[in-house]
Amino acid sequence: MTVLGVIGGGQLARMMVPPSIALGIEIAVFAESRGESAEIAVTTIGDYRDVEQVLAFAQGVDVITFDHEHVPQSVLRALVDAGVQVHPGPDALLYAQDKLLMRERLGALGLPVPDWARVETPEQLDAFLADHGGRAVLKTPVGGYDGKGVRVISSAAEAADWFTGGALLVEELVEFQRELAQLVARSPSGELALWPLVETIQRDGVCAEVIAPAPGSFEKLSAVASDIATTIAETLGVTGVLAVELFQTTDERLLINELAMRPHNTGHWSIDGSTTGQFEQHVRAVLDLPLGATGCRDPWSVMVNVLGGPAEGAFTDRYPAALADQPTVKFHGYGKTPRPGRKVGHVTAGGDELDEVVFRARAAAAFFED
Amino acid sequence: MTVLGVIGGGQLARMMVPPSIALGIEIAVFAESRGESAEIAVTTIGDYRDVEQVLAFAQGVDVITFDHEHVPQSVLRALVDAGVQVHPGPDALLYAQDKLLMRERLGALGLPVPDWARVETPEQLDAFLADHGGRAVLKTPVGGYDGKGVRVISSAAEAADWFTGGALLVEELVEFQRELAQLVARSPSGELALWPLVETIQRDGVCAEVIAPAPGSFEKLSAVASDIATTIAETLGVTGVLAVELFQTTDERLLINELAMRPHNTGHWSIDGSTTGQFEQHVRAVLDLPLGATGCRDPWSVMVNVLGGPAEGAFTDRYPAALADQPTVKFHGYGKTPRPGRKVGHVTAGGDELDEVVFRARAAAAFFED
Repeated sequence: MTVLGVIGGGQLARMMVPPSIALGIEIAVFAESRGESAEIAVTTIGDYRDVEQVLAFAQGVDVITFDHEHVPQSVLRALVDAGVQVHPGPDALLYAQDKLLMRERLGALGLPVPDWARVETPEQLDAFLADHGGRAVLKTPVGGYDGKGVRVISSAAEAADWFTGGALLVEELVEFQRELAQLVARSPSGELALWPLVETIQRDGVCAEVIAPAPGSFEKLSAVASDIATTIAETLGVTGVLAVELFQTTDERLLINELAMRPHNTGHWSIDGSTTGQFEQHVRAVLDLPLGATGCRDPWSVMVNVLGGPAEGAFTDRYPAALADQPTVKFHGYGKTPRPGRKVGHVTAGGDELDEVVFRARAAAAFFED
Repeated sequence: MTVLGVIGGGQLARMMVPPSIALGIEIAVFAESRGESAEIAVTTIGDYRDVEQVLAFAQGVDVITFDHEHVPQSVLRALVDAGVQVHPGPDALLYAQDKLLMRERLGALGLPVPDWARVETPEQLDAFLADHGGRAVLKTPVGGYDGKGVRVISSAAEAADWFTGGALLVEELVEFQRELAQLVARSPSGELALWPLVETIQRDGVCAEVIAPAPGSFEKLSAVASDIATTIAETLGVTGVLAVELFQTTDERLLINELAMRPHNTGHWSIDGSTTGQFEQHVRAVLDLPLGATGCRDPWSVMVNVLGGPAEGAFTDRYPAALADQPTVKFHGYGKTPRPGRKVGHVTAGGDELDEVVFRARAAAAFFED
């Protein structure tokens, strides 16, 4: 029996469990503490920065993959040196872990990225600002997510607290019409499968809604996004799901915003909306099994995140009203205690008319917010 | 957090786990031994006939439901007496546990059943045979499944070993064109949701294939099947999923063959083929949550069982070839060791043209048989 090992016990690990059970594949999760989202599959509680603990966990599994991108390179390389199958591997993950390295590499590949610079002093930052209209996006290269580690600034003084020795990444403030995401899965054997290009709506730097496929995503736009994602997946040797977040600029270019080398919030719609959901595909890919078809099951799918959730009680406390109101919507709860801004669940609606599908998805999600 | 308790650790319990995880509902399984199909959710190993063990398990859950129908009435009633929510309850389950009681009750309700009799002696059986063309179906009232406890006979001498004191059920050998199944879910509040009528193809008394919806299931046929299932669910007070297996006779009547009060093999297609699969619906129903929509996601869905599986190795060993050949088919492995005749998995295909969908489902299933 094949055993898939997942490091990290959050909702992404949780959502890998149903397709593993469906396929008949055993899954074991290495979590930081009891009661995390993926609790049902947790076999080890430990510190993913501790190489001995991670190596011990690896002995009981056939392949290791991840719920998050925070496992240190030293631990990843120790796993590889010990002969463990690690997907994605450290050479690829490096670029999802460090945004400066990612920008350097993508730029070197000739892929379209916003103007950017590595800055180590306030003076360098002010110089970049002067060249880019006085405003820019400053990012910590490591550890940011969901809007954390990202700040829009108009002077270096606004980021004085971030100049603590390491380099920072500064990027032009891109004038975009909208944000898109192109997800692709790649197996160690090199098989690729791309989902349709989707539109993502962000609020405060956090994914709020996803429309699949992206409305008005004419053939050329999709082809460019597919080429970008394919080039990154193949050149960096990504295995498993790769999410490429993109800006569609006001002058009709696509620029790469962020990369994630794991199932991603912008792909949650695919659980219910695609023949093969991103979590099933990730499981298949990292086990080097053939990939599944990625077509849409409905003309339109709309995913809405539940951020924060009810002020009191659990996510599921709202089910009597929500499920009665929206019998066609698929509800996903992450087993997490509601807290402002926290991702505690999502809903997905599907159907023929986009306006109506958006309405149903939003109506369903609204039951979980106060 | 709501906790659903399931007694029995087979593949039906296993398939309740993914929708519970998706919905954010905790699930705990009471199994007979380690390593059963639903292992990932097992919290208790014990004997479901032991009232003390079952009561102890019940203390940690909010609702109890079942993987099988074998929990004794005495245990079920002790749970109810202790204030535990049990769905389906003992008053309903009685009729799924004892085929003689079922025939008596359905006959009393005026529902269409084959000619039948309760026989306690070979003489009574021979008399029934003489009245019914010399051949009949003999059944043990309790404990039969998948063709076990069922025998086609033409003389009482062929069943001498079954006359051990208890009564037996004998039924006319129905001349049928085909077999059908009508599944319905009912919640304790009385909400009902019916899936489309399906055609089932049996081999050696075991479900082999299911086509959803049943080809040529004209409106009147579906309406009669729906009425039968609704009447049974409401009159017997069934909660959760009820499967009614039916004969469509050569003279165009529908006769009730068997009942099951749990998710059923003839509903497995709905996991991938309906907006709400039978396992999600069962979870919703027994927790008294509103039921989900039961429409088909594809014009046709075809489910094919994998019986027996590979002569050597595991079900999943065949994935490299099977998944590559059939990227649109959904594969389900039960984590069970292959053994002749054992249900070890199933596959479901969906699409627009029935012949083509049947072809894909059979082609996919063939990879698992030697």
